[in-house]
Amino acid sequence: MKILVLGGCGFIGSHVVDRLMRQGHQLRIFDRSEEKFRLPLPGVDYRRGDFADRAALAEAVEGMDAVFHFVSTTFPSTANLDPKRDVADNLIGTLQLVEVMLEADVRRLLFLSSGATVYGLPDATPIPETHPLRPIGSYGITKAAIEHNLEMFRRTSGLSPVIVRASNPFGPRQSHTGVQGVVATFFNRIANGEPIEIWGDGSVVRDFVDVRDLADFCLRAGTSTREGVYNAGRGVGISLVDLIATMERIAGRSVPRVFKPSSVTDVPVSVLDSRAAERDFGWRAEHDLEESLAATWDWVRSLKPGIG
Amino acid sequence: MKILVLGGCGFIGSHVVDRLMRQGHQLRIFDRSEEKFRLPLPGVDYRRGDFADRAALAEAVEGMDAVFHFVSTTFPSTANLDPKRDVADNLIGTLQLVEVMLEADVRRLLFLSSGATVYGLPDATPIPETHPLRPIGSYGITKAAIEHNLEMFRRTSGLSPVIVRASNPFGPRQSHTGVQGVVATFFNRIANGEPIEIWGDGSVVRDFVDVRDLADFCLRAGTSTREGVYNAGRGVGISLVDLIATMERIAGRSVPRVFKPSSVTDVPVSVLDSRAAERDFGWRAEHDLEESLAATWDWVRSLKPGIG
Repeated sequence: MKILVLGGCGFIGSHVVDRLMRQGHQLRIFDRSEEKFRLPLPGVDYRRGDFADRAALAEAVEGMDAVFHFVSTTFPSTANLDPKRDVADNLIGTLQLVEVMLEADVRRLLFLSSGATVYGLPDATPIPETHPLRPIGSYGITKAAIEHNLEMFRRTSGLSPVIVRASNPFGPRQSHTGVQGVVATFFNRIANGEPIEIWGDGSVVRDFVDVRDLADFCLRAGTSTREGVYNAGRGVGISLVDLIATMERIAGRSVPRVFKPSSVTDVPVSVLDSRAAERDFGWRAEHDLEESLAATWDWVRSLKPGIG
Repeated sequence: MKILVLGGCGFIGSHVVDRLMRQGHQLRIFDRSEEKFRLPLPGVDYRRGDFADRAALAEAVEGMDAVFHFVSTTFPSTANLDPKRDVADNLIGTLQLVEVMLEADVRRLLFLSSGATVYGLPDATPIPETHPLRPIGSYGITKAAIEHNLEMFRRTSGLSPVIVRASNPFGPRQSHTGVQGVVATFFNRIANGEPIEIWGDGSVVRDFVDVRDLADFCLRAGTSTREGVYNAGRGVGISLVDLIATMERIAGRSVPRVFKPSSVTDVPVSVLDSRAAERDFGWRAEHDLEESLAATWDWVRSLKPGIG
């Protein structure tokens, strides 16, 4: 297939590109950055541009069989600081993407949503896709509004969307500047011998999924013709304190903890029921948590030559 | 109380203003239009401006105890035509309103949402407030996203929102140009002896509420200190075909029906459970449907001096 990957140089997008390349798909990458983690891939048609640039987006969409959309200008941890920007960049940006897709008669769209934030405070865990969407932070509110709009365009305009609600992805290439995810951030602190900052008492439970497993699911879902919404998580929760203890064991070193006030838009528990992904795509998260954490630790260390 | 009414010259806002005046509140009206249905009200501080004008909005908010927000630049029947505009005008506009309110330390906000659209296809009727939000058209999607954001600002910033999910309001002063509501539109057609256009087979069921009842509830909810979300409907459904038959009986004349294809974002049934409004505010829709329709017919006729 001819596939446009929006955000294909980023954390999740780049792992999806790896898998699509292996399957022999013809790829075009639209990203505001160049490859950050490797040399440009041979045979890939790179388009550098801003997601808000309608003309550049329209050119990139032209002639494609499908679009995989991994662009987000915000993070769950920081989107609340400027909800207007979150809406303008990501919601209006995605509505514009759908416009240019329909104009170019490109109907297949994989959209990466956020199972960790769209449900809000869950009635029970693991959370199935049928659970009401009650997001309490800007990131999840915007993702939910995008999902609703994609469903509207499916009904009104023949868009063919498949939506992936990821749990908390982690792994190599995740930014460790403190906003994209706790695993990369904590490993970076451990590598530097710096204290780990924990928001709240560390009892919050999350469903961490290896980015390679998530990428594998995106490949399966996006290259199929199925429409709908799928959770993609391991279905097993771990508390932050237990996660940190595991990470320290893997790293063979420990660091102090600093406890900070928790955010009122952080949910206490988020674990996804991903049985629909297994039923329809035969997918399960294959990687063991400790093995995945070890691979991430190896990657963090590889960026810091001084660390043994 | 000092109350700013956004959209206070419009269909619903003007009825709320009537009731607030009677209770002796000190009113400021912010609207893009002048009074359309009456002379300017004595003692009201009118501010003419655009909802998107941040500076004008900030001036209007200054010194108020509460803001009642009835502005919408779109209608349920037409919002799908330009979802980007719906988001830019109404979602980003309301986020900007909250910003200027918090800057001015004005925390009380009544927001008019849409019980007829935010729920999507209901699991059962009448629909309680706890029903999941699964809007399938742009109008409801944007209203739901605004609701989620108001809840976020309640948690993070001390905003004190009360949200009114109206069913299908009708009554005097409703626009009859075919977009704001079927009752005014149909009565206008009946008065002109023109055919009525029905989208679908006319079997869709709606919960029509007299705008005076809705305005009464907005008064009670907005001037209280209660936060939360309340349906406001009669709790009784009527199909379009039955509604039209009743309207023709009241008008004493009948017109041809023209059936058009229905919209895929129209839900087949919407009837609201408003018991929470009764429990917390002692409110019920008081007006009988036929009496309300007769009042609306009188109003439509009053605009057309040639009709007996």
